Amino acid sequence: MRAGICSVTYGFHGAQHDRLNDPGLVHAALVEAAASAGLTAVASTHHAFEPQGLSAVVLLSESHIAAHTWPETGRAYVTLTSCKAMSRRAIEALGEQLAARLGASGVESRAVSLSEEGPR
Amino acid sequence: MRAGICSVTYGFHGAQHDRLNDPGLVHAALVEAAASAGLTAVASTHHAFEPQGLSAVVLLSESHIAAHTWPETGRAYVTLTSCKAMSRRAIEALGEQLAARLGASGVESRAVSLSEEGPR
Repeated sequence: MRAGICSVTYGFHGAQHDRLNDPGLVHAALVEAAASAGLTAVASTHHAFEPQGLSAVVLLSESHIAAHTWPETGRAYVTLTSCKAMSRRAIEALGEQLAARLGASGVESRAVSLSEEGPR
Repeated sequence: MRAGICSVTYGFHGAQHDRLNDPGLVHAALVEAAASAGLTAVASTHHAFEPQGLSAVVLLSESHIAAHTWPETGRAYVTLTSCKAMSRRAIEALGEQLAARLGASGVESRAVSLSEEGPR
């Protein structure tokens, strides 16, 4: 039985300009984070903005993970949406892992979930 | 000044099997929803699962919108992540619009936001 869906949004600050502007690095960070959470990549795309900043998304067997970066302010946001439940500890560990890859000095996260227990 | 990011997760139930299994329809529903919210599509990709179900994502100038469907149970989830603030009324209107396109009998939503007011 499916447990519904959980969506975690991470906000990073103090991240390194060059890393936030590197599609390959950001893509790799998303794929690695997904793998660490036991999730499997199935497709991906990205878009580079002018003069800087990028959006990248990896579709997973269990939903998706996407990043949006603002190199000019050292900010990045990552949203992980998954039908696989994650503990608070797992959510925080993933945030720390992503922060290390983005060279960020800090991260905060918010999670919401929708269950299949709602009205049918 | 950027206001941070808002992530809305919608859960749909009672949706039509064939619609949830149609990549073109789901992609069009996401692009139309984004346009209704004043957001601009810049890239997209999708993945079809066997024997059914799909994931689709549209990257936006203002972040992304993604759908994950389970035709076998009439369930679908859409996550809209945007750096553009949305009112509760706008969030609900978008959910109703998507529900109509997916042939869903009901929709619920949860929103989280992260502001730039956090620690730097």
